Amino acid sequence: MRVECWVISDALYSLPLGMMERITFTSIGVIRSNFKQASGTPIQGGAAMDIASSIEIFDEFKEGLSDLEGFSHIILLYYFHLTSGFSLKVVPFLDSEERGVFATRAPRRPNSIGFTVVEVTSIQGNIIHFSGTDMIDGTPVLDIKPYVPIFDQREECRTGWLEGNIHKLPALKDDGRFTK
Amino acid sequence: MRVECWVISDALYSLPLGMMERITFTSIGVIRSNFKQASGTPIQGGAAMDIASSIEIFDEFKEGLSDLEGFSHIILLYYFHLTSGFSLKVVPFLDSEERGVFATRAPRRPNSIGFTVVEVTSIQGNIIHFSGTDMIDGTPVLDIKPYVPIFDQREECRTGWLEGNIHKLPALKDDGRFTK
Repeated sequence: MRVECWVISDALYSLPLGMMERITFTSIGVIRSNFKQASGTPIQGGAAMDIASSIEIFDEFKEGLSDLEGFSHIILLYYFHLTSGFSLKVVPFLDSEERGVFATRAPRRPNSIGFTVVEVTSIQGNIIHFSGTDMIDGTPVLDIKPYVPIFDQREECRTGWLEGNIHKLPALKDDGRFTK
Repeated sequence: MRVECWVISDALYSLPLGMMERITFTSIGVIRSNFKQASGTPIQGGAAMDIASSIEIFDEFKEGLSDLEGFSHIILLYYFHLTSGFSLKVVPFLDSEERGVFATRAPRRPNSIGFTVVEVTSIQGNIIHFSGTDMIDGTPVLDIKPYVPIFDQREECRTGWLEGNIHKLPALKDDGRFTK
């Protein structure tokens, strides 16, 4: 099954026309996971390492998967398709205070692009099996990149408001606060 | 200065209509860097840790930057605006063989979204100063997320075709092969 529709970011309607560049993407595939709604879905792949799912890549893009089997981890960029509109201040799952949305990973952002590093378990044709699922079934996939520690890891990081809250991560699940 | 135009992914024209979901985003800001063209630009932020640049966030989105100053590193998602079309097989900068585009970080991809982790040096109003620049001046910014090691780092990674080539990274620059 493929979704056939236009999803227009609410940002287009809430800003003066002509004030921004509009960029149109098309999904290259779809996530197949056991999470059918936001509530109960893990809030980060790093807290869901043992949860297996798959990506179905549309046939037109399958050739682009060549050589991917050599990489143990991939970066998934996807669209938070169950959000609607955005807020510049949000109360994130891991806190009880409002924070600037760009200082959080909340889905309800001006451009609702999700980012998760997942571990590839196997690739069979146009299906990528992976573990580390924090996406809902049916999530449109925008891009896949190889995860490369020398490119992507940074040491000695400060993590702001999260520092006092990160201990809550293993027990927390999505409660649906950012979905329609 | 703001860019005022529609950028329609070539993917929309090269695929049968109705075969995919189209998703429209709008830029939240723009990169200001000393690199005015692709040729000569570092190919990864991890190889350009000492190169400083800034992001101008449009006023409408400035409130979303609250609390970001607590984080030392941020994830930048941006649009490779100088690419045109895409290839499912590409010869990446670090190799001389064709690879599946999703096993590379090449800009000429079905959805040309760039990803770099950069180090924040300061935030002044709507300007984020950072180091680790591998973007060209004028690049539209799509999203900013806090970089959080417990969310985003993975250990014991295999990196496929890059393993025999990564030693080339410090000396390599973009040669313009993926731009118009």
